[in-house]
Amino acid sequence: MSANVPAIPSEAGSLVPTHWYNIAADFPEPLPPHLHPGTGEPVTVEDLIGLFPRALAEQELSVERYIEIPQEIRDVYAIWRTTPLVRATRLEKALGTSARIFLKYEGVSPVGSHKPNSAVAQAYYNRNEGVTKLTTETGAGQWGSSLAFAGALFGIDVEVWQVRASYESKPYRRYLMELYGGRVHSSPSELTEAGRAILAADPETTGSLGMAVSEAVEVAMRDDATRYALGSVLNHVALHQSVIGQEALAQLQAAGFDGADVVFGCAGGGSNLAGLSFPFLREVLAHGAKTRIVAAEPVACPSLTQGEYRYDFGDFSGMTPLLKMYTLGKDFVPDPIHAGGLRYHGMAPTLSHAVNLGLVDAVAIEQDAAFHAGILLARTEGIVPAPESTHALAAAYRYLAESDRDETIVIGVSGHGQLDLPAYGGFLDSYPR
Amino acid sequence: MSANVPAIPSEAGSLVPTHWYNIAADFPEPLPPHLHPGTGEPVTVEDLIGLFPRALAEQELSVERYIEIPQEIRDVYAIWRTTPLVRATRLEKALGTSARIFLKYEGVSPVGSHKPNSAVAQAYYNRNEGVTKLTTETGAGQWGSSLAFAGALFGIDVEVWQVRASYESKPYRRYLMELYGGRVHSSPSELTEAGRAILAADPETTGSLGMAVSEAVEVAMRDDATRYALGSVLNHVALHQSVIGQEALAQLQAAGFDGADVVFGCAGGGSNLAGLSFPFLREVLAHGAKTRIVAAEPVACPSLTQGEYRYDFGDFSGMTPLLKMYTLGKDFVPDPIHAGGLRYHGMAPTLSHAVNLGLVDAVAIEQDAAFHAGILLARTEGIVPAPESTHALAAAYRYLAESDRDETIVIGVSGHGQLDLPAYGGFLDSYPR
Repeated sequence: MSANVPAIPSEAGSLVPTHWYNIAADFPEPLPPHLHPGTGEPVTVEDLIGLFPRALAEQELSVERYIEIPQEIRDVYAIWRTTPLVRATRLEKALGTSARIFLKYEGVSPVGSHKPNSAVAQAYYNRNEGVTKLTTETGAGQWGSSLAFAGALFGIDVEVWQVRASYESKPYRRYLMELYGGRVHSSPSELTEAGRAILAADPETTGSLGMAVSEAVEVAMRDDATRYALGSVLNHVALHQSVIGQEALAQLQAAGFDGADVVFGCAGGGSNLAGLSFPFLREVLAHGAKTRIVAAEPVACPSLTQGEYRYDFGDFSGMTPLLKMYTLGKDFVPDPIHAGGLRYHGMAPTLSHAVNLGLVDAVAIEQDAAFHAGILLARTEGIVPAPESTHALAAAYRYLAESDRDETIVIGVSGHGQLDLPAYGGFLDSYPR
Repeated sequence: MSANVPAIPSEAGSLVPTHWYNIAADFPEPLPPHLHPGTGEPVTVEDLIGLFPRALAEQELSVERYIEIPQEIRDVYAIWRTTPLVRATRLEKALGTSARIFLKYEGVSPVGSHKPNSAVAQAYYNRNEGVTKLTTETGAGQWGSSLAFAGALFGIDVEVWQVRASYESKPYRRYLMELYGGRVHSSPSELTEAGRAILAADPETTGSLGMAVSEAVEVAMRDDATRYALGSVLNHVALHQSVIGQEALAQLQAAGFDGADVVFGCAGGGSNLAGLSFPFLREVLAHGAKTRIVAAEPVACPSLTQGEYRYDFGDFSGMTPLLKMYTLGKDFVPDPIHAGGLRYHGMAPTLSHAVNLGLVDAVAIEQDAAFHAGILLARTEGIVPAPESTHALAAAYRYLAESDRDETIVIGVSGHGQLDLPAYGGFLDSYPR
């Protein structure tokens, strides 16, 4: 495949790309448009302004293949990028496989996940257009802390609604948001109409990402200097995350490997897997590469494997544009599993389209299988993966256990799990000390 | 200075060194020997065997300039090395300095600090000599989790005595040790004679690294397949940590900078600063470079700035060889500051010798100044530094505030502080949200 891989835009001596890759340019059938909830017509850039700054609204609807990454964003990426592509030989041995396993590890970012790749871009464009405050939702807190971090760098106040299940079980990520200067509320909250209505109907709700989105959107609509930022799902978020897969391809080439046979990633809203896999799909679509992509989602929130592919709202209260996606329905409230970042009722329209076209397969993973996969990674390669990332590991182990395969495997490890260590405790009893 | 920097041994295309650098080869006066506590004579390799495997005992007394890093260790280093050397332009701006600040950031390792650089080496050599169990002490848990990680990779059981003050205030690092398969005890414990004697004298003691060393050494002496591993202080630990400074020098050169004017690092037992600074001191000693080194220690445990330079034991109970070092006395129990890794009564003999020769300066930093330095780093560069590392930052900020200097500054950020987030909380009140 190496002859087919186009030169990935990057500066001399660096594997960090200079451009984001936009898969909308390469889909064999056009990406279904987002629809205006009032008119049912495809949304325009003008429709999205008010919620997002113009630059991001334009990226959301763009079909340009490459969009240049502004220098100021690349300067921030340089704090932690490139992220490691680790050949996991000790894990291979433990699994007894002939496959070559590579881990693309985003846990080395300042907040410990892939989320800053988009948070930094979103804060930058908002700052450029005079926005002084951003609101957002977060599950486990990976996105909220990423936006708080980015806000600190670009001088923007950040206010976060964190899903109650995670707010209560993962206090360290709240401390992290506050350290960066962010304000954090448990969602649903009494601060918004949406939150008050949800609490009135079910005071004991564990919350959901969809509910938290409603609250953050409501507050962003209140004034002109405040905008909303979304950590996943939307096209411009998948765009920003494409740095992951572009780097991974370049790193594989540098290590003498012609791409990968299978790429595994966890999928909640979809930004991690989209970012990792779409550059590989570019090789499939544009150059006939044979790479397969596998989305690993939790059994507790199986939008790809159990949901319907249809238009639905991105949030609980129906304030967002209608998105064509695999969805469990905007009212779906998943069990409070540890992988808070995977508790989303829908799935990125780009990734949903790729699944619908047969370009991406999906599997659902039980929580205990996921944690056991994470423990094996920790004890073979040292990396403690985020609960979300363990789903991708479990899916890969299962695939490799089916038969011995002489293949090259890339597993996206979207974040570290050091702030999730108490969750691991419950799964250690079956292991010898 | 670039013409003077010798080619740092490394593989083609990599800045990770292939050899450790041993400053004992270059000191203008020989390093004072460790003394046998019974005879008062310099210890021999044979004296050290029993406590350490032969390979490490030989490294402890070696005066060879370069010692090759075995391939199996380099393969593990490859999980996270090279670590980033970050140009901190946003921090420079916030400080209003003309200086160029570089952060050498060890927080990207699987456990989040520089400690695995030596843990992996120690586990490797012990495994090679048939050792099946390692005992050790730990403060905040950075070293204990590193050794547990290394033990998991090399099939060695790891048992850790963690200083009570940290055991009780930092449960996440205990979970991390257990995730890697380690066993963890609060120190002083009822499991050793040393621990029982300390508890009998002061049941409410907060513990100290010196006490925890005594317990771990006592258990290691009980049987032949068990050895002790120390996370700092000793010469072989400083040797292993030299990968940090060698990388930093190579990265500075790659960025077009001829070394550094000043290098700042925190110093508890000394391994972090030794590892970062000794390759820079090689340039001073062998090639006349002008780099100054500054050790930042806590006011609560000021061995370099308030201690005596004399022979003392490395542990509380007097079980180790006598080490020539700056010491507050083996009975000294520091206040339970958050920077648990800096709560050690002595200082690495190599670093102490360098201080005594005038090659390294020392400053003592108050805890609140340290945390405020950490908050500024988080809000400018995103990195949340370990409480230990914040001391180096505070020392550098103070130096840069004295006058505007057109200099190149390297600050060692020895680890991330994501498991120390509750400690940051108490210092956030004076910051706007």
